[in-house]
Amino acid sequence: MKWMRCRLDGREAWGSVEGDELRVHEGSLFDSPRPTGERWPLGQVQALMPCQPRTMLGLWNNFQALAQKNGWAKPAEPLYFLKAPGSWTGPGTTIPAPPPEVGRIAYEGELAVVIGRRASRVTVDDAPAHIFGYTCANDVTAMELLHRDPSFAQWTRAKGFDGFGAFGPVIETEFNLDAAVLRTRVGGRERQNYPLSDMIFKPAELVSCLSQDLTLEPGDVILCGTSLGVLPMKPGTEVEVEIDGIGVLRNRFG
Amino acid sequence: MKWMRCRLDGREAWGSVEGDELRVHEGSLFDSPRPTGERWPLGQVQALMPCQPRTMLGLWNNFQALAQKNGWAKPAEPLYFLKAPGSWTGPGTTIPAPPPEVGRIAYEGELAVVIGRRASRVTVDDAPAHIFGYTCANDVTAMELLHRDPSFAQWTRAKGFDGFGAFGPVIETEFNLDAAVLRTRVGGRERQNYPLSDMIFKPAELVSCLSQDLTLEPGDVILCGTSLGVLPMKPGTEVEVEIDGIGVLRNRFG
Repeated sequence: MKWMRCRLDGREAWGSVEGDELRVHEGSLFDSPRPTGERWPLGQVQALMPCQPRTMLGLWNNFQALAQKNGWAKPAEPLYFLKAPGSWTGPGTTIPAPPPEVGRIAYEGELAVVIGRRASRVTVDDAPAHIFGYTCANDVTAMELLHRDPSFAQWTRAKGFDGFGAFGPVIETEFNLDAAVLRTRVGGRERQNYPLSDMIFKPAELVSCLSQDLTLEPGDVILCGTSLGVLPMKPGTEVEVEIDGIGVLRNRFG
Repeated sequence: MKWMRCRLDGREAWGSVEGDELRVHEGSLFDSPRPTGERWPLGQVQALMPCQPRTMLGLWNNFQALAQKNGWAKPAEPLYFLKAPGSWTGPGTTIPAPPPEVGRIAYEGELAVVIGRRASRVTVDDAPAHIFGYTCANDVTAMELLHRDPSFAQWTRAKGFDGFGAFGPVIETEFNLDAAVLRTRVGGRERQNYPLSDMIFKPAELVSCLSQDLTLEPGDVILCGTSLGVLPMKPGTEVEVEIDGIGVLRNRFG
């Protein structure tokens, strides 16, 4: 089942995707949502962020192929950072290009996990019950800022600019990660094409490990990390992150 | 003027501190708050987080004395990280002690800036108009996690555990940083005592620099970094962060 939020003629609503319609719902997305009876034609709506997180976390070094290529050791535990709330944006928006002195800006196509039930110190076995679904994400990064200061890796800053955390357009509740491929296209050209099964810490492990440290709330988002094919983007380019079975997240940069 | 939020007999309210009373207000703290006429006796209330941030940021290496002691170079620009929303807590709460395998947990007494007006790419001269006031903060840190993985400094994780971002009890709108000293007491014993004038990047510079990257919203909080005297805490200890002219933030650890 696919869930999305969207706007039509200045109104906002959310609901499930059925054929070429949005079946509008009310109540809570994470707790017995009720259909209102209203239906919106998907061809006319503008998709928005599919949920409102309290916290968005991202993973570093979570794909074997990328670790191998860069000579990174397999991490003993998930290595994560936070995405600033101002960075969160939905599909169809323009990601503002920072001023030139910030340096090159890279896309990172990623699978994102959406939490459905409060998770605090859950086991790996219990973790799936706390996952609501999955969506596409672009973990945009100011590459040159990361290690500009030799004494302090600037993860928060490099990944926290306004608009640098795009996700959407839908949350798919039934998703088979092992069979899915992620593709990133920049200006129509395929730049990333990797199997999600190559992930080092899988969603259930991520939710379990992270929930040992901090409480995850419904709507919170975990970006699972990226793999091969990351490159800088030129301002004016369109970036698409497509995941089999979920959909396409499309944004303009700059 | 001092502003605070508090609870009395199961009700919540916020307002200005006048003598030994809370003068309850309504509307927005950041935009023409209106007194309701109600007054609460401060002796009977429980103080809460004085505002609800969207984003909380913290500074590393922002005091000259600490940089000198540790042999850190003066940073060319503010070096910052994010505090996870689940870490935010108010005065009087107990900061949960993580399990022993997380290692030693340190207090960090800090001055916190509270944003009053949306700030995006503001100049240093314009920055003060975007600052609402100041409060006390304890930027609690899992010291041993920070560099446990040699390839990735875990700032988000080490500073993001539930309850690790305490702030309050009041927001003081008229505050003279250059004359103020911060003291941290642990179990009644003074462990930090440093002048805030020793700060490397002052509040106006912080707001200006950070707002080049990300939009700061009313209620957002910037922790200005700590100085000498940081030590691990034993579970069961009371920690107090006192700033001249603001007040005392008191929490229990463990």
